[in-house]
Amino acid sequence: MATRFRTGADSRLEKLIETHRATLDDAIAAVESRASWSPFADSPSTKIHGAEKPAAGKAAFEARLGRRFELDQPGIVDWIGTETSPYTREPLGITYPRSAPDALIAAAAAAMDGWRHVDPDVRIAICLEMARRIYDRNFEMAQAVMHVAGQSYVQAFSGSGPNALDRGIEALAYAAKAMRDVRPHARWTRPFGRDMVSLEKRYTVVPRGVGLVICCASFPTWNAYPAIFANLATGNAAIVKPHPIAILPMAIAVEIARETLSDHGFDPNLATLAVDSIEEPVAQAYIDDPAIQIVDFTGSPRYGSYLERTVTGKLLFTETAGLNSVVVESVEDLSQTARAIARSASLFSAQMCTSPQTIFVPSSGVRTPEGSISAVDFARVLGAEIDAIAEDAATAAGIMGAIQGDVSIDVIEALREKLPGIPGVEIVRDAVPYAHPDYPDARTMTALVAKVPADLADIYAEEQFAPVLFVVETPDADEAVKFATSLAKEKGAISSYLYSVDPEFVDASLDSYTAAGANLSVNLHGTMWINFAAAYSDYHVTGLNPAGNACLADLAFVASRFRIVQSRWPGKTA
Amino acid sequence: MATRFRTGADSRLEKLIETHRATLDDAIAAVESRASWSPFADSPSTKIHGAEKPAAGKAAFEARLGRRFELDQPGIVDWIGTETSPYTREPLGITYPRSAPDALIAAAAAAMDGWRHVDPDVRIAICLEMARRIYDRNFEMAQAVMHVAGQSYVQAFSGSGPNALDRGIEALAYAAKAMRDVRPHARWTRPFGRDMVSLEKRYTVVPRGVGLVICCASFPTWNAYPAIFANLATGNAAIVKPHPIAILPMAIAVEIARETLSDHGFDPNLATLAVDSIEEPVAQAYIDDPAIQIVDFTGSPRYGSYLERTVTGKLLFTETAGLNSVVVESVEDLSQTARAIARSASLFSAQMCTSPQTIFVPSSGVRTPEGSISAVDFARVLGAEIDAIAEDAATAAGIMGAIQGDVSIDVIEALREKLPGIPGVEIVRDAVPYAHPDYPDARTMTALVAKVPADLADIYAEEQFAPVLFVVETPDADEAVKFATSLAKEKGAISSYLYSVDPEFVDASLDSYTAAGANLSVNLHGTMWINFAAAYSDYHVTGLNPAGNACLADLAFVASRFRIVQSRWPGKTA
Repeated sequence: MATRFRTGADSRLEKLIETHRATLDDAIAAVESRASWSPFADSPSTKIHGAEKPAAGKAAFEARLGRRFELDQPGIVDWIGTETSPYTREPLGITYPRSAPDALIAAAAAAMDGWRHVDPDVRIAICLEMARRIYDRNFEMAQAVMHVAGQSYVQAFSGSGPNALDRGIEALAYAAKAMRDVRPHARWTRPFGRDMVSLEKRYTVVPRGVGLVICCASFPTWNAYPAIFANLATGNAAIVKPHPIAILPMAIAVEIARETLSDHGFDPNLATLAVDSIEEPVAQAYIDDPAIQIVDFTGSPRYGSYLERTVTGKLLFTETAGLNSVVVESVEDLSQTARAIARSASLFSAQMCTSPQTIFVPSSGVRTPEGSISAVDFARVLGAEIDAIAEDAATAAGIMGAIQGDVSIDVIEALREKLPGIPGVEIVRDAVPYAHPDYPDARTMTALVAKVPADLADIYAEEQFAPVLFVVETPDADEAVKFATSLAKEKGAISSYLYSVDPEFVDASLDSYTAAGANLSVNLHGTMWINFAAAYSDYHVTGLNPAGNACLADLAFVASRFRIVQSRWPGKTA
Repeated sequence: MATRFRTGADSRLEKLIETHRATLDDAIAAVESRASWSPFADSPSTKIHGAEKPAAGKAAFEARLGRRFELDQPGIVDWIGTETSPYTREPLGITYPRSAPDALIAAAAAAMDGWRHVDPDVRIAICLEMARRIYDRNFEMAQAVMHVAGQSYVQAFSGSGPNALDRGIEALAYAAKAMRDVRPHARWTRPFGRDMVSLEKRYTVVPRGVGLVICCASFPTWNAYPAIFANLATGNAAIVKPHPIAILPMAIAVEIARETLSDHGFDPNLATLAVDSIEEPVAQAYIDDPAIQIVDFTGSPRYGSYLERTVTGKLLFTETAGLNSVVVESVEDLSQTARAIARSASLFSAQMCTSPQTIFVPSSGVRTPEGSISAVDFARVLGAEIDAIAEDAATAAGIMGAIQGDVSIDVIEALREKLPGIPGVEIVRDAVPYAHPDYPDARTMTALVAKVPADLADIYAEEQFAPVLFVVETPDADEAVKFATSLAKEKGAISSYLYSVDPEFVDASLDSYTAAGANLSVNLHGTMWINFAAAYSDYHVTGLNPAGNACLADLAFVASRFRIVQSRWPGKTA
């Protein structure tokens, strides 16, 4: 049914649709099959990309340093920027245009008046072209992400590159599905009394209004692309508000989006950057404006839940954070399970919304083929696995990257000070920095591992935005699941983990996780990070617990971003 | 893909699915083709239904009078009810159980715990069975609607019967589409480095929470069925709060819903009735309860917009009211256009959300084949067409029915008092009651028609919940469209009407209506009411103007009523 969107597209835009048609078709097939698929390569290997791209990307990044990031958008008031690299601890020295909210909103609304008339397939193709161009500059983007967020080079390349773009394209697939569900016209005929009445009807997809996309500091691209693309595809504009400590990746993305729009004859003000500072936050000024009709928020539970309590009369999509738990009832292989947990807790130094934090172990211990192992001993095995990662500098750097902000260091310091004095708490592995092989000044930290009694919920049941693993002993395995699922329900969870070789226990536990709205990974280990979430296949955030209300991605993520207006007139009765 | 929902259904439920399969399939086909379709007959003709059903339905209704409406639901505190028939002006004398909100909410939440495990296809089949049973009792329902709302017998039978049930089944079609979009399981395989990783994944549709369905007084079934069915189909419970002056139709619907659930082994507390009184309204107590996660509201703009401004952290669907306009630029046949407008303004004495109120005519007059006719003369022609309806008692009764509440009479009285004193206002037809042939005490009123100057927006641009037509002269036809679309944007519109024989003018005007989020009917006349909205074909409410945020029905109406929870575990690599 692709032809149904073909109205008013010129031949160049027709060609653009053709260029990206297979990607869109494959993406739609993938969200339906939920099989593995991506149009991109998520390894930075020079075997794939050639020898020159990594250096060129790094050079492009370095050329940005100490300069204005030129973005020719409306209402520029001044130029600001105070980003600091977690690797060098040096300021990037890049300043960005700060625009007056009124000016960006007015420009976005004006741009939408043309954009809403553009064939949805063209709008989707423009977004796919943006994705392709962002991908083409992914070595530059990876450097940008590294030096604002602290992700490792490999993770910045993959997780903030193709994996994030895939989330964006996934949203496009759903936008296409939802808009294609609206037939553009129909003939309707039925008898009324003795008369046959025939009507011609036209149904028009109409955007809802200007969208504000509030990005998080540590992993900005992953949630921003779906929101930006979902808005643009459905005819809305996107004003992108990056976190003030992580502007550069979104500035690059907005630059590319604007170029792509301009290059195809569309108003670049459909995508603009709303820069602010920690001292003078600007988000609320946008949110309070009636023209802003869609708010996508990724960030702290504090501000996220404030928005959830206060935003009315507009669409609000949130992803905040959860407190992800692991239940370890029994294992097939102790070290492979411990390694899987240790690796995921070390990945990006646990600064991910999917990082596990609290591990529940029955008081009878974890059953293993070699007999049961107590909670504290399990914690020690975890600690040893983290040591193994930390001891090899190249491995540590590739997995842990750097700590984005001093706040996480402060969390660790506070725990190191507080925990030893608490009866029943046993620190089995201390948190210490590791020496980064390339960046001697990098802010790094390896995970602290502590055994904590089950009654100290104020410690293990609060999100610690830092590399920490708490091992908590529970009366039995069923209680462990109860602790884990209550935690998910009350504090929110994005990824939950369960290890058991007993299929009956797993089956009996599954429904508790489902009822808690907790996505569960069972018995995962091996090369894939257990907290890896694949676009097109893994639904991310259920919306059933306090970790957020928006799912990446489902029909609900897109279906309300546009509305339907109809007209009808007498038709000819056949 | 019907088999994908086949889990745990016993053979009786299998049979129920089979019984209703064709209806569901046809409904899904209809919402996609937007062609005319219904599984029901919307005429009360005895040729269709046989000679006995009308009398049996009336007898069933009359047997209700002066008695308790026995509904065995939890937490009954007392029995209340003060409904009065607009036809007899006598109290119905029916009392209904008033339950404590806590009790109904707790019972609904408890019932959901089982219901969420029920195969979505079973849940949909149960709703289709409810629809069938309601239809089977439609002669009783028609009497109930007549005697609480004041609709005419024919309209109560069709508009509040099959046409409303069709809206409910339409919502079921979308619920099926949205839930079927969630694949129940998948295998996912991709390489990580040198390893091939394979995962099995399960995706579960999980209901969001207890739904509250707040019904309007004048046309309760039409919006209630979609909300109730959308909630039940997606695994939620529905607490139905009727308007205190129009309880009976919803009590019958809830009675049938509960019977249908019980008869198939499900908890009847998935559907309960929350009765209240004008003096002690109960809606807010439900809305404030955290267990209530979905609110569907149909009713006054005042309370609707209050909810839109205050409800957070839950889904809110609203339909309030709009101020529907007609622009008459030119006509092919003056009397057929005037008759079409007059009939729609007389239908149910304009107590419908689609009734036209304000007619804009260019100062050069309405072009007709016989020359132009001025605004005031056009108003006179309208008045004559209303006279023609009013003069024939049977026609008047069949079209106008009765006035539900004294409030509409008060509106008319206030206008009759106020308008004559305002310079430039000309009453061309006075509002007077008509004599109902069957019910001499019926509260009736025919439409007032007045020409009002364009600068008196405080008169014609305010919704008058009464039979009134204002004819307003505008500088030219383009200005008429501007007035009409500004009105829609600012006050809300559910149905807008445009008459012009100039295709260029129509084309040029269309986009203004689209931009105002106003559904438009162009040049309609003849047997079909111009304000008739057909389920499966006409989208009702755009959500782009103050008339409400919910559309009957689209994917957005259902897609957020459930969420998706996933689990995954290692699969076998092939």
